[in-house]
Amino acid sequence: MHLLVNTGGGDAAGLNAVIHAATVAALKKGWKITGIRDGYEGLLQKGRVGLIPLTWEKVRGIAHLGGTILGTKNFGHPFAHPVTRNGKTHTIDVSKQILHRFKELKADALIVIGGDGSLRIAHRFHEMGMPLVAIPKTIDNDLCGTIQTFGFDTAVSVATDAIGRLHTTAESHSRVMVVEVMGRNAGWIALYSGLAGGADVILIPEIDYDLKNILKKIKEREKSGINFSIVVAAEGAKTKGGNLLYQKTGAGKKKRLGGLGEKIAWQIEEQSGKEARTVVLGHLQRAGSPTHMDRILSLRFGTYAVELIAQKKFGNMVAYMPPQMRAYPISKAIKGVNTVPLDSDILTTARELGISFGDI
Amino acid sequence: MHLLVNTGGGDAAGLNAVIHAATVAALKKGWKITGIRDGYEGLLQKGRVGLIPLTWEKVRGIAHLGGTILGTKNFGHPFAHPVTRNGKTHTIDVSKQILHRFKELKADALIVIGGDGSLRIAHRFHEMGMPLVAIPKTIDNDLCGTIQTFGFDTAVSVATDAIGRLHTTAESHSRVMVVEVMGRNAGWIALYSGLAGGADVILIPEIDYDLKNILKKIKEREKSGINFSIVVAAEGAKTKGGNLLYQKTGAGKKKRLGGLGEKIAWQIEEQSGKEARTVVLGHLQRAGSPTHMDRILSLRFGTYAVELIAQKKFGNMVAYMPPQMRAYPISKAIKGVNTVPLDSDILTTARELGISFGDI
Amino acid sequence: MHLLVNTGGGDAAGLNAVIHAATVAALKKGWKITGIRDGYEGLLQKGRVGLIPLTWEKVRGIAHLGGTILGTKNFGHPFAHPVTRNGKTHTIDVSKQILHRFKELKADALIVIGGDGSLRIAHRFHEMGMPLVAIPKTIDNDLCGTIQTFGFDTAVSVATDAIGRLHTTAESHSRVMVVEVMGRNAGWIALYSGLAGGADVILIPEIDYDLKNILKKIKEREKSGINFSIVVAAEGAKTKGGNLLYQKTGAGKKKRLGGLGEKIAWQIEEQSGKEARTVVLGHLQRAGSPTHMDRILSLRFGTYAVELIAQKKFGNMVAYMPPQMRAYPISKAIKGVNTVPLDSDILTTARELGISFGDI
Amino acid sequence: MHLLVNTGGGDAAGLNAVIHAATVAALKKGWKITGIRDGYEGLLQKGRVGLIPLTWEKVRGIAHLGGTILGTKNFGHPFAHPVTRNGKTHTIDVSKQILHRFKELKADALIVIGGDGSLRIAHRFHEMGMPLVAIPKTIDNDLCGTIQTFGFDTAVSVATDAIGRLHTTAESHSRVMVVEVMGRNAGWIALYSGLAGGADVILIPEIDYDLKNILKKIKEREKSGINFSIVVAAEGAKTKGGNLLYQKTGAGKKKRLGGLGEKIAWQIEEQSGKEARTVVLGHLQRAGSPTHMDRILSLRFGTYAVELIAQKKFGNMVAYMPPQMRAYPISKAIKGVNTVPLDSDILTTARELGISFGDI
Repeated sequence: MHLLVNTGGGDAAGLNAVIHAATVAALKKGWKITGIRDGYEGLLQKGRVGLIPLTWEKVRGIAHLGGTILGTKNFGHPFAHPVTRNGKTHTIDVSKQILHRFKELKADALIVIGGDGSLRIAHRFHEMGMPLVAIPKTIDNDLCGTIQTFGFDTAVSVATDAIGRLHTTAESHSRVMVVEVMGRNAGWIALYSGLAGGADVILIPEIDYDLKNILKKIKEREKSGINFSIVVAAEGAKTKGGNLLYQKTGAGKKKRLGGLGEKIAWQIEEQSGKEARTVVLGHLQRAGSPTHMDRILSLRFGTYAVELIAQKKFGNMVAYMPPQMRAYPISKAIKGVNTVPLDSDILTTARELGISFGDI
Repeated sequence: MHLLVNTGGGDAAGLNAVIHAATVAALKKGWKITGIRDGYEGLLQKGRVGLIPLTWEKVRGIAHLGGTILGTKNFGHPFAHPVTRNGKTHTIDVSKQILHRFKELKADALIVIGGDGSLRIAHRFHEMGMPLVAIPKTIDNDLCGTIQTFGFDTAVSVATDAIGRLHTTAESHSRVMVVEVMGRNAGWIALYSGLAGGADVILIPEIDYDLKNILKKIKEREKSGINFSIVVAAEGAKTKGGNLLYQKTGAGKKKRLGGLGEKIAWQIEEQSGKEARTVVLGHLQRAGSPTHMDRILSLRFGTYAVELIAQKKFGNMVAYMPPQMRAYPISKAIKGVNTVPLDSDILTTARELGISFGDI
Repeated sequence: MHLLVNTGGGDAAGLNAVIHAATVAALKKGWKITGIRDGYEGLLQKGRVGLIPLTWEKVRGIAHLGGTILGTKNFGHPFAHPVTRNGKTHTIDVSKQILHRFKELKADALIVIGGDGSLRIAHRFHEMGMPLVAIPKTIDNDLCGTIQTFGFDTAVSVATDAIGRLHTTAESHSRVMVVEVMGRNAGWIALYSGLAGGADVILIPEIDYDLKNILKKIKEREKSGINFSIVVAAEGAKTKGGNLLYQKTGAGKKKRLGGLGEKIAWQIEEQSGKEARTVVLGHLQRAGSPTHMDRILSLRFGTYAVELIAQKKFGNMVAYMPPQMRAYPISKAIKGVNTVPLDSDILTTARELGISFGDI
Repeated sequence: MHLLVNTGGGDAAGLNAVIHAATVAALKKGWKITGIRDGYEGLLQKGRVGLIPLTWEKVRGIAHLGGTILGTKNFGHPFAHPVTRNGKTHTIDVSKQILHRFKELKADALIVIGGDGSLRIAHRFHEMGMPLVAIPKTIDNDLCGTIQTFGFDTAVSVATDAIGRLHTTAESHSRVMVVEVMGRNAGWIALYSGLAGGADVILIPEIDYDLKNILKKIKEREKSGINFSIVVAAEGAKTKGGNLLYQKTGAGKKKRLGGLGEKIAWQIEEQSGKEARTVVLGHLQRAGSPTHMDRILSLRFGTYAVELIAQKKFGNMVAYMPPQMRAYPISKAIKGVNTVPLDSDILTTARELGISFGDI
């Protein structure tokens, strides 16, 4: 057997642990395993330059490291690959070329480590006849079929630490601190880190917020003698009127704001008279050494993917349904988004603890 | 409604988060909630001295703190309570006294936060007619009915960090490092932290180890050019011949060893000729601020316990079955021990990655 | 004796440790000590509302906490205090009012915990006859007369962790990561965290940078097969042509950039064709629990300030000249800025290690 | 020029940073640099097997790693080297052999990274005509001539974190926690971590303790309503009667205790009736990634050692005298031990804050 493995999209803590586990498990079965450089890019390059033979020496001691030894330079879409000719960029379909190269390498299966986008591409390749299994990677935890994706726990850890840190500054300076975290479609990072970090307001894409309700919460706290508040906002949180990211700076003038966090801080400052400051955690959430839980999850994902291949259960994603791993069809995984259910007890817990979601 | 809440047994990170959540949730319902000092001890004391009225001010800002504001001084067993008279200690049954005091306080329900021992006591009180619900607390994660107890994630975090730290020393000094972690009946902490921290050998109570197999693993590594090894041993790990904790120090002399870790290190040093050192993590695993996951779990436990009381589902423990919380009968929870299943995929993962459990 | 103590300006980790130490040391001498709320603001308020009697109970267990129990809400300048009347804001001199209140409280001395601005104000009050000593607080470490200010070590710690975290993302994605840290006039945080975190380029106010040299460094690395770079930029770093914070976004259009980090990232991306991303650490550097070194430094500062008062060495700042503390005249401290000396061996070390400062 | 570099003795965080800096600085000057494996052992081995050519690739990305890429397996003393013949071990002087090999390799200078023992050996080699400079390595910070050694800051960091963690457990359980830290001859780690971590009692080798005074402190705290205490004990702390490490366990029986921490905990428990527990930090203090300050210090040490060699200032140790580095004769450095001065302001600070040293 000869396995290929690639990783696509943004960074997520645990990638190297997945690669480590898949490699060691494959080698133990006496199989050969090869990494593809930069998504599918390595399959478009001539010779061996786009391939990384995975050996025990190559993956030794990488499980606790951030990043990925395979690289994930932006590749573009295999079905709509950007090509620049004569100064103009257009897209072409290179999927057949990739499939051809897959066969040329006498590969028996591909392990795709990726998020929503990578799963959609994998689904199409699988339909074209490429035997593959997927491993769910996204710090946003918004993939269906699995309770958790790897990278999420680390992101929550980073965000919780940051929120915890900012508490005392907020309190000493009687300020509102707005912490912008990742989460375009799902509010998991904001919800978990806000709950763990002791936020007063959490804004998530699943619940439209109204600025009035944020201000109401801040005022309620002031009335009970607490002169500071912590707002945690997922980057994808929405207000009913939409999120125009501009600030009026004078007669007819306006300044473009960096993001939702900055906008909310400015609005709070303007309307409440309180000092408000923003911190945007950005790439810090993706980067660095995975937490113990992300390491364990990643190692299990990698090992189980090899197991699924041994059982020829292609077209599936490894899904974590505590306490065990199981196979979940990629075709189903790409049909939905794992958003925070409005009736989940974790949301109830947050509301019971007095956290406002800006909706009431 | 008037709730009582107590905590029993050893420390576990998240206790204050549970108390915080239960208090805020109860107050929000307009209920009264009172903490009992030091397990059931506070109910044996006269007047108000053993009681801590729980108010919003009292629990503000405690969710991220280690320890418990209620205290958990060793109380002894309410059904076999140690009493010292005339210099002699014997035990008496004070359970009726406690039940009487419960009624005297016009309490409607008790929230018991505790491990196996506390659950057994709670079960008996419940059978005597005391309305109560329990919250599973143990860093060992060995309680039945719930996927996870609070305190466990923090313990794994501390152990993983320590193991990670010791890697480079082991490597530079060509040493075997033996890290002893908690886990008398179940090897969860050893398994999780050993997997996340990159151990070469993990010893758990569920799998009898043979020193020969540990030595074999160390030698295998040496043959492939790796001159160090990391052994993670749960304190309750067992070898077939039993664990006599003595070291021969000369003709007929022997030195009593501090624990399993020290014993194994000495045996490895004696039989392999390699330097071996021990680190016993002990109370560091119990102490300190809970991880983000333990905070979230604890907050959910506390809130859900109040919800169970509102629904009069007494005699139950709050159990975490991802993604949701549910009620699980205490009577069932105390019938077993949640040990590591020998067919769990996490154990398979560890074996696939080449980790030895000392059994082969 | 009756001491007053206040804190002014931005947050710095260690404030509460200073207050803890000064209070305990004063109480031990049998003195009385009172905190002034929000800089000098508390002395302008009637009655006791602006005062916080400092007792052993009040300061117990605060040494490791971030923030300040005295508050540091923006107060404005006592010699040019903003007052709003009839909708218009102008400034008045309230210094005599403050001095009067100081005498009215029968205070014998004031401990001022602050940075450059607070020291200038303290100097004027001292010249007006107020007995006081100062403690140097600034995360930028830019105060003269002391080798280190408190808050600096914590800021470096936060920045180093962040830079370390971003390495693997930068490497996996073949990116340039630009980390913007604090430091308006002095580059200490950038220099220390850049050196400790393994930056490739460090930009500091003391050394004018030229974008060409940054690009040169990035290219040199690419030539030797390393496709990523880390740039650490102090917010006050300057290029010769000045720092216009605008980005051209099309014909005649431009977008205002959030800060220096964003500007440099954009310029690098535009001119090198490499992906570049920014992280602005902002308030994370000021906030949170002080490092062990900041705790020790703060405790020593607080204790020594009380000692200086006992010796009636007014008009001095406590200065750390390892291994000992000493008195340093405030009048001298405010005359200069402690910038990174261009001949310091730490700068030489950085250059020897191949770090570019953008000047050559 | 051809430099050799070796490291001797126990692990200390920062070793790889020193090696990184010395290598890069030497290569930049166009010099050749070679690591000796396992102290001087590598010079006794034939051929190239004991030598590690240091290149830019070899030292890339190691500055933040614990351990040492050169290895420091126990070597024994070059002037009294253990040799086993016919089952008997005796010692021989291999120093001339080492000096001969040094010349054979056409080495121009040696960089010795080590503590007190390594410096004494270096001194003798220097007197025999070997050109060398030394870099002060010891986590105990007990070397003369330099304000700080590398490895110390990391050890204090680990110890402070552990002490901080144990606070809440101690408080909840009304316990005395005894934390044993390293420091055979000097109490720096105990003093710094005890001060930063909020210890109530600190025991250091410089000040003989009396158990009575420890018990007095614990009782004082109980009288003021605080039912727990934290004792930090340097392993080399001494009581007047000496430290017999036995515990009576019955009629004529006794149990050997693991160390000073265990002894003190047992004595406190026996004499105060309070529960007492021990944590021995041991190797955790030596191991792992260096703190930002240890990284910076190590990088400066390594660079400056190369500078001293360029200036032919042999026989010197690099010494840190803030803010600069300087040369300090090894002959002077080995004449004393840098213990905590009894009149240092840091000791005064600790006493002012109410910390007991067991002497009064």
